[in-house]
Amino acid sequence: MLPEEIEISQNISVNIQAFFNASDYDKVAVLVDENTRLHCLPLVHKVIKPTDIIEIESGEEKKTLDTCVRIWRELTDNHYERKSLLVNLGGGVIGDMGGFCAATYKRGIDFVNIPTTLLSQVDASIGGKLGIDFLGFKNHIGTFELPRKVFIDTKFLKTLPERELRSGFAEVIKHCLIADKDYWKIISDVDFKDQNWPDIVNHSVEVKNKVVEEDPFEKGRRKILNFGHTIGHAIESYFLQMDEQRLLHGEAIAAGMICETYLSGKFCNLPESSVKSIENYITETFGRIRISLEDIEEITKLCLQDKKNVKGIINFSLLKEIGNSVFNVGIEQNEIREVLQLYARP
Amino acid sequence: MLPEEIEISQNISVNIQAFFNASDYDKVAVLVDENTRLHCLPLVHKVIKPTDIIEIESGEEKKTLDTCVRIWRELTDNHYERKSLLVNLGGGVIGDMGGFCAATYKRGIDFVNIPTTLLSQVDASIGGKLGIDFLGFKNHIGTFELPRKVFIDTKFLKTLPERELRSGFAEVIKHCLIADKDYWKIISDVDFKDQNWPDIVNHSVEVKNKVVEEDPFEKGRRKILNFGHTIGHAIESYFLQMDEQRLLHGEAIAAGMICETYLSGKFCNLPESSVKSIENYITETFGRIRISLEDIEEITKLCLQDKKNVKGIINFSLLKEIGNSVFNVGIEQNEIREVLQLYARP
Repeated sequence: MLPEEIEISQNISVNIQAFFNASDYDKVAVLVDENTRLHCLPLVHKVIKPTDIIEIESGEEKKTLDTCVRIWRELTDNHYERKSLLVNLGGGVIGDMGGFCAATYKRGIDFVNIPTTLLSQVDASIGGKLGIDFLGFKNHIGTFELPRKVFIDTKFLKTLPERELRSGFAEVIKHCLIADKDYWKIISDVDFKDQNWPDIVNHSVEVKNKVVEEDPFEKGRRKILNFGHTIGHAIESYFLQMDEQRLLHGEAIAAGMICETYLSGKFCNLPESSVKSIENYITETFGRIRISLEDIEEITKLCLQDKKNVKGIINFSLLKEIGNSVFNVGIEQNEIREVLQLYARP
Repeated sequence: MLPEEIEISQNISVNIQAFFNASDYDKVAVLVDENTRLHCLPLVHKVIKPTDIIEIESGEEKKTLDTCVRIWRELTDNHYERKSLLVNLGGGVIGDMGGFCAATYKRGIDFVNIPTTLLSQVDASIGGKLGIDFLGFKNHIGTFELPRKVFIDTKFLKTLPERELRSGFAEVIKHCLIADKDYWKIISDVDFKDQNWPDIVNHSVEVKNKVVEEDPFEKGRRKILNFGHTIGHAIESYFLQMDEQRLLHGEAIAAGMICETYLSGKFCNLPESSVKSIENYITETFGRIRISLEDIEEITKLCLQDKKNVKGIINFSLLKEIGNSVFNVGIEQNEIREVLQLYARP
């Protein structure tokens, strides 16, 4: 069962319309990037009837304080008040940053998420984690706040380039690996291109939401959602600084999941056959990122900046078996180096 | 009765020591300005044993995003983690901004307030309102988060210039006017210089905390704490842009309280005798700010940027009688202009 604030439908306009009919906002701004303005806004413009459209440039490298200043300034210049609303129409960057701006503008105005990418539908838009990157570190500045509503419609996925869709699929894989062995069998039997997206979105939102409800502020069990993300974030941060080889979030997480599957085998008794099947399916779907020895040193260092680092020991969320995960497994730096080497030369 | 997180003592080092003995932080940074580093840090350095000292320049005009970037950067460069602590040692600027930085650094680390000014002891350090100024608007970007502890010791008040002490006294007056007629009689019978500070701090913290506990997110009754602040903040913002005439927060609030006392007389039947006695005592204590006709226009406009503005009508918190206040009294712009004129030419 999903909570009241998350609505999934194949015709979300009806739900959005009902929400606005029952609301009393004095102003409604929609936050978009150049892509969602072109491909997604036309699908919902009529029911949102925005007072203002705030457009920012797309891309993770724009998820910065400078962009927040632009958003806060537009809200201020247009006299947005506590009774105003911000609608985040886009992927994870729009949702995380727009949510952070709303949650901190005049100490908090309402916001609504309409996630338009697979990644944001199954992950970023659920659970209230908001934030921006800072000094190259992912989500380094942020807060927790739930949106008033999350409206999910898989028809937006048709507006996505295949590479973006594949990136979001990494989080789908993660949700199966940490919590649902049966659903892992279903998706890993099918090629990425032939997946049943409406089904997958429903399933993934339910898994994520259940975990988040049990532990909203990540004091304990919510940490299992970090599987693949400790090394994955470090890889993502590292390649973010490089112009020549841009990685999408899910591509970095896919690599992170392979590395952390190796750690699961070594430290949590994940059976060798499971390690192999996870490694194979992810490699088939995502390929392998080229990582040099020099890269490995830098990525290992970046892992120390992870939020789950306590006194130099990095806490991982790992798999005991497929569908069964544990958190707070303390791992030392040299072990991280080792699995990155294994990933680079399998 | 005060909640567990607020401790008031004439020898606060003992309490601070007990707190650290029972805690397990990997690092402790103390945020100070040049004044609190010199006058206050020596009084508590031994019990805090800070890992790092972060010094920022004093003054409301430094309560900006740029200063936050400096604080976040120092925490990042020194590898502060979720198990680290920030201690805010100073007045309202240090508490509001340090709290905001802690609450958003890696989505929130613990912070402790040691307020060193009267203003921050009786007001800013209590209640979890955090924030910074933005585009000249007071506390325009911020959030709500409670400190782990607030340690209050009136011996810090001896380090204050008289003008600072007087500024904080404005909030003491406000607490009496909105909630305690008897205590208003006690303080208004005595000259500012002869007040009993330990008693006053205790009383004011209790009043503020009681209001905040009933309504932590300012959905309703907490708004009464805004008495004097709607016009007061506009006056403060206006003079913040001017170099020649710097106002302290309490000086602006004192003027705001006189203006809003006039409004209380006109719209809430506050008796004429009470209007006079409030006006007289505040004028005796704070004098009168010089405000020109041109200033009045600008200050009136600034009131529209107030967080309590809904669709152009500004919601005030006003007095029905001394010790008895109401909120959400909708007032139009021209009424604000009128009381400012009355203030300027009494």
